[in-house]
Amino acid sequence: MRISELAETTGVPIATIKFYLREGLVPPGERTSATSARYTDNHVRRLRIVRALIDSGVSLAETHAVLTALDSRQQNVHAVLGAAHAAVTPASGDDIDPAEAMHLVAQMGWRVGTGDLRAVHSVERALRAMQQAGFTPAPELLATYMDSMLTVARAEVAAVPAESIDEAVHFVVLGSVLGEPLLLALRRVAQQVASAERFGASVAVPSPPSAASPGQAPE
Amino acid sequence: MRISELAETTGVPIATIKFYLREGLVPPGERTSATSARYTDNHVRRLRIVRALIDSGVSLAETHAVLTALDSRQQNVHAVLGAAHAAVTPASGDDIDPAEAMHLVAQMGWRVGTGDLRAVHSVERALRAMQQAGFTPAPELLATYMDSMLTVARAEVAAVPAESIDEAVHFVVLGSVLGEPLLLALRRVAQQVASAERFGASVAVPSPPSAASPGQAPE
Repeated sequence: MRISELAETTGVPIATIKFYLREGLVPPGERTSATSARYTDNHVRRLRIVRALIDSGVSLAETHAVLTALDSRQQNVHAVLGAAHAAVTPASGDDIDPAEAMHLVAQMGWRVGTGDLRAVHSVERALRAMQQAGFTPAPELLATYMDSMLTVARAEVAAVPAESIDEAVHFVVLGSVLGEPLLLALRRVAQQVASAERFGASVAVPSPPSAASPGQAPE
Repeated sequence: MRISELAETTGVPIATIKFYLREGLVPPGERTSATSARYTDNHVRRLRIVRALIDSGVSLAETHAVLTALDSRQQNVHAVLGAAHAAVTPASGDDIDPAEAMHLVAQMGWRVGTGDLRAVHSVERALRAMQQAGFTPAPELLATYMDSMLTVARAEVAAVPAESIDEAVHFVVLGSVLGEPLLLALRRVAQQVASAERFGASVAVPSPPSAASPGQAPE
């Protein structure tokens, strides 16, 4: 298809597609003349991923890194997950002793390999930022955070399609990155629900999924 | 105390303090001469909060908004939570019909008031970005996300100190904002644990909290 059809199919303006092409986020089409090129369904697929990442607030550099992880053709889902995490986790500016970071997570009850030190560093950095603000989460709250995130992670990993490594990699990388804004947004809505439960505002009441029907949305 | 002592107490360089003062993130000290001012413990406290927010990746504009929510002296924790969320949730650039957004969340099994439409919009935006990338979370995964976030939110709200509204506001605003990087980092580490469980890499094994001791951290 021509670039105009590519734009029509994906809803991404031609100027934006040209920008992505210049940035190397989308591979060039097959040149058919001096001024035109042919694009395929692979371009449609790639363009949708790039758009979704950038719309989710992922930077150009991180988008590059995620695409590299997607293209790495690793035959091991576990390794790809590590690569994807490394891609979207900023390197810590300060020197954190790996042994110290591992020690922290071990103390929390998880034993983690050296494959994902950046994520462990992120945990340490986040905890330190809270402490600096005079806000250290109580051990019970931290335990709830950990339990809930392990529940989430197990459900995510269980959903990874095992038949095709390509599909699996796709699922892991995109689910990992695109799931972040969803989880944070759900947490905020849930906080409103929980806050209404405790502080008695009448604006929000939780209802079981089975009881919900389209007609029940409050105005 | 003088600005040099303020810098020493908080570990924030004088140049940075002066920048925060110019930006209005920290209130001016009490002027004692043409060239010097006196600062109090309130400045120490505020400076630590500003530093923690900015270190967590919160932008200058969002930090302003969070501080405004902190200073709003609302007498209702539920209202303050809404203000804090509104402060750190970007307004959606596109027009989302409020009724439609509410409908979505009601379909998901939560009934939410109109007080926190921005968070609901964020849920919708995040889901849409995933769909655009050809990645729609299965209903069971979405249900796990929701259950886990409600568990997290209830634990957070239960931990809010009820004696002092000031303390409560502090806790809600900072916990809400500073908790985000912690949760995301924990999710990534948990994904490594879950991925090792399923895909059999030997780099990570979960161990129950009771079994963990400082000596057990792997090298």
